[in-house]
Amino acid sequence: MSKRVKVGIDFGATRIKMAFVGEKGGLSYRREISTPIDAKRSVLIDTIASSVREIIEESGFNKRDIIGIGIGVPGPVDSKRGVIRYLPNIKGWKGVALRSILQTKLGIKVALDNDVNAMTLGEYRFGSGKGARNLVCLTLGTGVGGGIIINGEIYRGSTMCAGEVGHIPINEKGPKCNCRGIACIERYIGNRYIIEQARMVFRKGITLEDLTDLARSGNKDAKRIWEDVGEKLGVALTGVVNLLNPDRIVIGGGVSNAGELILRPLRRGIKIRAMKDQALHVKIVRGKLGDNAGIVGASLLVG
Amino acid sequence: MSKRVKVGIDFGATRIKMAFVGEKGGLSYRREISTPIDAKRSVLIDTIASSVREIIEESGFNKRDIIGIGIGVPGPVDSKRGVIRYLPNIKGWKGVALRSILQTKLGIKVALDNDVNAMTLGEYRFGSGKGARNLVCLTLGTGVGGGIIINGEIYRGSTMCAGEVGHIPINEKGPKCNCRGIACIERYIGNRYIIEQARMVFRKGITLEDLTDLARSGNKDAKRIWEDVGEKLGVALTGVVNLLNPDRIVIGGGVSNAGELILRPLRRGIKIRAMKDQALHVKIVRGKLGDNAGIVGASLLVG
Repeated sequence: MSKRVKVGIDFGATRIKMAFVGEKGGLSYRREISTPIDAKRSVLIDTIASSVREIIEESGFNKRDIIGIGIGVPGPVDSKRGVIRYLPNIKGWKGVALRSILQTKLGIKVALDNDVNAMTLGEYRFGSGKGARNLVCLTLGTGVGGGIIINGEIYRGSTMCAGEVGHIPINEKGPKCNCRGIACIERYIGNRYIIEQARMVFRKGITLEDLTDLARSGNKDAKRIWEDVGEKLGVALTGVVNLLNPDRIVIGGGVSNAGELILRPLRRGIKIRAMKDQALHVKIVRGKLGDNAGIVGASLLVG
Repeated sequence: MSKRVKVGIDFGATRIKMAFVGEKGGLSYRREISTPIDAKRSVLIDTIASSVREIIEESGFNKRDIIGIGIGVPGPVDSKRGVIRYLPNIKGWKGVALRSILQTKLGIKVALDNDVNAMTLGEYRFGSGKGARNLVCLTLGTGVGGGIIINGEIYRGSTMCAGEVGHIPINEKGPKCNCRGIACIERYIGNRYIIEQARMVFRKGITLEDLTDLARSGNKDAKRIWEDVGEKLGVALTGVVNLLNPDRIVIGGGVSNAGELILRPLRRGIKIRAMKDQALHVKIVRGKLGDNAGIVGASLLVG
C-alpha cells in the first residue's frame, strides 16, 4: 500500500467533491455530495469530516498512509494561516480557521486555499498547464475566477486576493458588477448573463447546453452569442497577456464546455489585439481535468 | 575610496544620462548628453563608452573600485543574455549584444535591461516603492511603460515582455494603438493624445506644462482634461489591482508632473471600481526619483 496518497477536497457552494489522489494525479474512491448550504456551519464541517472518514474506511488506507488533506474553498483564504476570509456565496464563514478545525477532527495534516488557486495548481501539474512557467487559469461559470502561476508557483498577491481575472473592466462605462465594479468581464460572460442574452435573442428560456447544441448545428444566432463571449473575453485577456506575458492560458469551468465556440474568437481576439511578442508566445487551451481539477489541485496544496 | 560604487546609464531615445551611484542610491559625477540618434550604431556605442571613461577619469576612481555598469535601454531586452531585442524608436538595434560589446570596450562588468524595468528597480529600492513586496511602476510619457515587482523581484514574463500596462485595453471598441491593439490606455493618455485633446478644447497649441499651470490656477477645461487622464488610467489600473493585488503602484514619467491633478481622480477611480480588499490595500504614489530613476535603477542591475 502506497504511503504517498493524499486527499483532495473541492468544497463548492453547490457540491462537495473529494477523492484520494495518487502521485500522478489519478483519483480513487471519489465521492460527491450536495453542499448542505442552509445547515449550520458546524454541521457542514462535520459533513465534510465524516465524508473523509468514510472514504478512508472504504479505501482500507491507514491514516498513516495519508500524507495530508488539501481543501479548496469558494472564497478568499489566508493560506498561510489556514483561515477562510469569507465565502461570498455561503453565509457565516468569516474568519473560520478551517485548517486547524479539520486537523483536530481528523488527526491528519490539512492545507487550505482558494478553490481557483487549487484548480490552477491541478491544471498546472497534471492538466493543460504542464510544462508552462507562467500561466493564467480561468474558470468560467456563475462567475469568472482566475489563478496565476508565476515562475512555477501560485501567485497570491499582497493580501491573498490576486488572480481576479473576472473583474478586469473591458469598458470605461457599462453595467454594474456584483463586486461593485463597472463593466467587469464577469458582468458580460458570467453564465446567467449569457443565458439572459440567449433568452432575449430566442425569446424563450434556454440552457447553455442547448445554446451550444444550437450553435454546433449551425444556428447563427447561437453562434453569434458564443462568439461575443469569446471576443469579450479576448479584450480582458489582451490586457492580461500584455501585462503578464504568460506561456499559457488555461480555460476551465462549466461555460468552457462550449469549447471552440468560445476559444476560436478568443484566440482571434488575442492575435489581433495583443502585442506581437506576447500574442505569438501564449497558448490558449481548454482545461484537461474538467470537473476533477479542483480535487486534484486541492491535493497538491499538501506539501 | 569606496569599492562599492556602480555606474548607472539611462540610455533613452532623446537623452543619455549616467552617473556613479553609491550604496544608498546617491549620485555623483552625473552627466547627460543628447542621444546621437541619427549616427551609426557603432558611433552611438562609442559615445556611451567614452562618456563612461570620462566620468571615471573625472571622478578619480580606479577601474577596480567599480563593481559594474548597469544600462537601461528603451526597448525589450533579453536580460539573461545581455542582448537588445530591438529599440522601437531607434533603428538598427535588432539583436545587438550590447552587454558584451561594452564589457569588451570598457573592461568592466556590464548588466543590461529594459529602461522601465531599471526605473522600477530604482523606485523599489530607493524611491516610493521602498518596503513594498508586490509593486507596479508606471512611466507616463510619450508612451505608457510599466514594470512589475513580484515578491521583491522584477517579473519579466515568459519572453521578457511583461509589464506592458500601457497596452491594457480600456474599451472593446476605440482608437487603434501603435502596438496594433485597440483602445489601449496609452492611446488615450500618451502625451501627444493629451496635447491633441488640449488643442481641441483650447483651439490652440498648448504644452503639458501650460495645461498643468492652467488647471492649478483653476481653469475648469484644463482640470477636466487631467481628470479624464486620471479616470481613464483608473480603469486600466482597476484591472491591474484586481489581478495582481499589489501593495503599491508608483507613477513616474514626465506626464506625472501634473501630480495630484491626475492622482486624485485615479485614486478615486480605484476606490470606486476595484474590489474592496485590493482597493483598500494598494497605495498609489508618485515616483520619488524623478529624472534619476533610470540611472539609479540601472546601477541596481549590477549584481
